[in-house]
Amino acid sequence: MQSFLNPTARQTATRFFYFRGSYFDNQGGFRQNKQEASVLKNKIMERTLVSEAFKKAGEEINLQGFVNNIRHQGSIAFIELRDRSGIMQAVVMKSSEAFDLTKNLSLESVVSLSGKTKEEKQAPGGVEMEVAEIEILSLADPELPIPVLDKGDNESNQTARMNWRYLDLRKPKNNLIFQVWTAMETGFRSYLIKENFIQIHSPKMMSTGSEGGAELFEVKYFKRKAFLAQSPQFYKQMAQSAGLERVFEIGPVFRADPSFTSRHATEFTGFDLEMSFIKDHHDVMNLQAELLANMISEVKKVCGKNVQETFKVELNVPKLPFPKVTIAEAKKMLAEKKIPSETDGDLSPEEERVLGNIIKERDDHDIVFVTDYPISNRPFYHMRDEKNPQLTKSYDLLYKGVEITTGAQREHRYEILLQQAKEKNIDIKDIEHYLNFFKYGCPPHGGFGMGPARVVMKMLNLENIREVTYLYRGVKRLTP
Amino acid sequence: MQSFLNPTARQTATRFFYFRGSYFDNQGGFRQNKQEASVLKNKIMERTLVSEAFKKAGEEINLQGFVNNIRHQGSIAFIELRDRSGIMQAVVMKSSEAFDLTKNLSLESVVSLSGKTKEEKQAPGGVEMEVAEIEILSLADPELPIPVLDKGDNESNQTARMNWRYLDLRKPKNNLIFQVWTAMETGFRSYLIKENFIQIHSPKMMSTGSEGGAELFEVKYFKRKAFLAQSPQFYKQMAQSAGLERVFEIGPVFRADPSFTSRHATEFTGFDLEMSFIKDHHDVMNLQAELLANMISEVKKVCGKNVQETFKVELNVPKLPFPKVTIAEAKKMLAEKKIPSETDGDLSPEEERVLGNIIKERDDHDIVFVTDYPISNRPFYHMRDEKNPQLTKSYDLLYKGVEITTGAQREHRYEILLQQAKEKNIDIKDIEHYLNFFKYGCPPHGGFGMGPARVVMKMLNLENIREVTYLYRGVKRLTP
Repeated sequence: MQSFLNPTARQTATRFFYFRGSYFDNQGGFRQNKQEASVLKNKIMERTLVSEAFKKAGEEINLQGFVNNIRHQGSIAFIELRDRSGIMQAVVMKSSEAFDLTKNLSLESVVSLSGKTKEEKQAPGGVEMEVAEIEILSLADPELPIPVLDKGDNESNQTARMNWRYLDLRKPKNNLIFQVWTAMETGFRSYLIKENFIQIHSPKMMSTGSEGGAELFEVKYFKRKAFLAQSPQFYKQMAQSAGLERVFEIGPVFRADPSFTSRHATEFTGFDLEMSFIKDHHDVMNLQAELLANMISEVKKVCGKNVQETFKVELNVPKLPFPKVTIAEAKKMLAEKKIPSETDGDLSPEEERVLGNIIKERDDHDIVFVTDYPISNRPFYHMRDEKNPQLTKSYDLLYKGVEITTGAQREHRYEILLQQAKEKNIDIKDIEHYLNFFKYGCPPHGGFGMGPARVVMKMLNLENIREVTYLYRGVKRLTP
Repeated sequence: MQSFLNPTARQTATRFFYFRGSYFDNQGGFRQNKQEASVLKNKIMERTLVSEAFKKAGEEINLQGFVNNIRHQGSIAFIELRDRSGIMQAVVMKSSEAFDLTKNLSLESVVSLSGKTKEEKQAPGGVEMEVAEIEILSLADPELPIPVLDKGDNESNQTARMNWRYLDLRKPKNNLIFQVWTAMETGFRSYLIKENFIQIHSPKMMSTGSEGGAELFEVKYFKRKAFLAQSPQFYKQMAQSAGLERVFEIGPVFRADPSFTSRHATEFTGFDLEMSFIKDHHDVMNLQAELLANMISEVKKVCGKNVQETFKVELNVPKLPFPKVTIAEAKKMLAEKKIPSETDGDLSPEEERVLGNIIKERDDHDIVFVTDYPISNRPFYHMRDEKNPQLTKSYDLLYKGVEITTGAQREHRYEILLQQAKEKNIDIKDIEHYLNFFKYGCPPHGGFGMGPARVVMKMLNLENIREVTYLYRGVKRLTP
C-alpha cells in the first residue's frame, strides 16, 4: 500500500468503541486497556461517512470507500468517493502531493481520502472535499468484468451481473435492497418477540423429506443418506408438541425445483411460525396481518425516504384487517373478469395477478387472504373444515398479486392425521417420527411459512427474486 | 374431543388481535371485519396463562395446557396443569360434572380447564383452580416412552431423551433454555442493528468448500455435486468486496465431523459478522466484547430471575474491556501451572479450561481473548502481523474456559492472499471464485464466528451442547 498519510492517522472504525450503550451502565464506567488508550492518544482523524460529511462543510475529515468515478480536467483530478452511505466529490489539485497517486487510480479501487470539505454549488449535494492526502487501500484491476457505475445500460444482462454479484451489489440501489431486508426482518422479529414467541433453529438435515418426498436434495451423510429440509414444517410442529406454544424460525429452505421462473430458487430464506391453542386458521391470519403491517412499517421507518427516491415506491403500511375471500369466491370474481381457471382449487400466477387487481380496485388494498382451499390442493396435515370436510382450514396470502404465504390450522389428532396421510398415499414409514409428535398430547395449533424475498420484491415493485437475493441459487447457478 | 364446555367458550389466543401496537397509529383505528366481530361477541372467556392466573385468585378463568400430574384422593381429583408459563394445581370435586372425565385422563394429555381460582395455602404457589368444566383437547397415550415429570431420576439417559426430544423439551427447565436462547439472539441482533450492520442470508449450497476441503457434506445437485457451507466465511467477506461494510449472519453451518465430544455437532447455528475499514483485529475484539455483554445483559433482563431459580446461576454482565493475552503468554501461564502443552500454537480443551481458571483468579473475569496465533494454526486468509510475519492478526475468545469464537483481520490484498493460499497447499482452482472477490477493490476488514450453543451452555453452566440444541445432529443422530 502506498501512502502519504502519517501512519498513525488511519485510526478507523474505532470510534464505535469509545462510548458504551446504556445497557452497560450497571457495570460502571468504560475502562480502556493500554492498547486502546494508545490508539486513542495517537488518533488524528476518524473516518466520516459520506452522509455525515455533507453536514460538515469546512471541516477536516477522512473519507474511506470505493472510487466510483475519476476524471482529470487540466490541473485537477475529480474523484467520486462512494461508501455505504452515499457519494461525495473530492478534488485533488495538481499542486498537492496526492495528485501523483490519482494518475493510476483505477475505478473501484478502495481509498482513504483526508482533507477539508467546503461548500461548492457545482458539486453534487453542494459539498466537496479538497484532498490533502490519499491512501490507496486496495487497487482494483483496471479491467472490470461488469461496470459498477450505473449508466442505465447494464441492467439487462442478469447472468453477467449474477456472475459478478459483488460488483453488482456495489450499486447503491442494490445496497439499499439489503437495508430494506434487514429492516423488514427487524419488524418480523420485534413483533413476535413482543408476542412472546420463542425462536428456534431446527435442523436442515433430516432422515426423510418434510413435504412428502418430491424435490428433495440428497446428502451423503457418513455411511447413509440425509435430505435437506424443504421447510421447517415438521419441526415447528414438534415445538407445539414440546409445549413451546409459540415459535418462529428464520432460516434457509431447500427445493430441488428445476423451474426457472422469476419467483423460484433452489435455496431461499423462509420466515416460519407456529402457535398453539388457536381457535382456527383465522387466528393465524389475524396475527399475520399485524405482523406484516409491522414489517412494512419498520422498513418505512428505517429507509422509506431512500426507497421512495431510489425505487419510486411510496411504502404504505397496509390497513387492518386485510380483505379475505374464499377460493370459491375468488374463482367467481375471476370468472366475471373472463379469466380462465386452470385448476379448480388453486390459483395460477395469472389468476393471482388479476385477483390482486380486483381487490386493489374493490378495497384499495395490496393484500388479500384466500381461504378454504379444497383438500385435493393441500398437504395431508392441513386440518379439514368440520362443516365441509372437502375443504381445509387453510389460506394463502397474496401481496400485490403474488402468493407470499401458505398457512393453515394443522391436524393435531393422531388418528385423523394418520388417516389423512393414508388418503394422500404417503408411505407411513417415512413420516413415523413426525406422526409420533401427536401421540403423547399435542395442543391445537396452526402457522404459516412466508417468503421474505417475495415480500421485498413486491414491496419495491421489482420483477425477480434474484434481484433481492444476496446470492441466488438455481439449477445452473452454484457460484460465486 | 369430548367436551362439557359451551362450544363458543373456547375462544383462545384471539385476545392478541383486539388491540393494536402503537406503530399502526398512522393508519387510523382498528377495524373489525364481520367474522372477528362475531368472535368477540360470543367470547365468554379468554385463556389465561398460569403465571397470570396466580395473580387472579377469586376469578373465573380458563387454563389450557398439559396434564403434568394427576391423582385421585377420595372424592377429589388433583390435576397439575402445565403451560409454558408455569404449573397450577386444579381440583375437580366428585360432585362436579367434570369429574368423570378425570378418570381416564392420562399424563401429558392436553386439556382446557375452566373454573374459579381461590387462595389455598396448601397448593403450590398459594392459588388453585376449582374446575367447573374440562375439555380434553388431545388425549395422550398412557404409555409414555420417557417420563416428562422430572423426579431427578431420568436425566442420565441422554439417548432416550434425544429420541423423544419433544417430551424432554416439555420440562420447564428445557423450555427455559430456549427462552434464554431467544433473548440472547435479541441481544446479538439489537446491538448490531444499532451499529448499522446489515443482515445477510448467504447460500448454504456451494460449488466448493469454504474452509479448505475437509469435513464437507456432499449434496447431489441435479447433474453435479454441491457442498454444504462449513461457515459463511467466504460470503461474508464477499459482502466487504460488495461494499456492504458491516454485515452479520445467523444461520446453520455444517461439519462432517466424526467426533462425539460434548461440544461438537454435525450441524449447528452460527453467529457471524464481518466489518470493513478496521485498523486491525483489536477493533473486531472490542466490538465483540460490547456485543457479548449486550447478549448476556438481555438474557439477564428477560429471564435472569428464572435462570437463577432453575439453574442456580447468577448472570453477570461481563466487565469491559475483556482481558487479552497472547497465545505465547497463555502458554507461559499454563507452564507455570505445570499443564503440558500438546501443540505449540493452540490450546487443548484442558488448556482452555485451566487458562479460564487462571484468568478468573487473576482478573475475576469469565472471559479472555487469546491473540496472535502462529500462521501454522490459522487458515490462509488470516492476515499476518507486519512486525512478526510468523504470527497472525487473529484471536480466540474463551468463555468460562471454552472457546466460543475465532476471529481475525482478513488478508484483503489479492496477491498476498494468493501467496498465502499456495503456502498452505490449497488448490487455487477450488478457491478461484473466492480470490476474485479481492481483485476489484476490497476494503481492509475482519470479523468472527461465534457458536451460540456454546455461549448458552456456558452461560447456564451446562455440560453438553446437546442440551441447548433444539434437535442435535451427530454422526449417529438424524432423527427425530
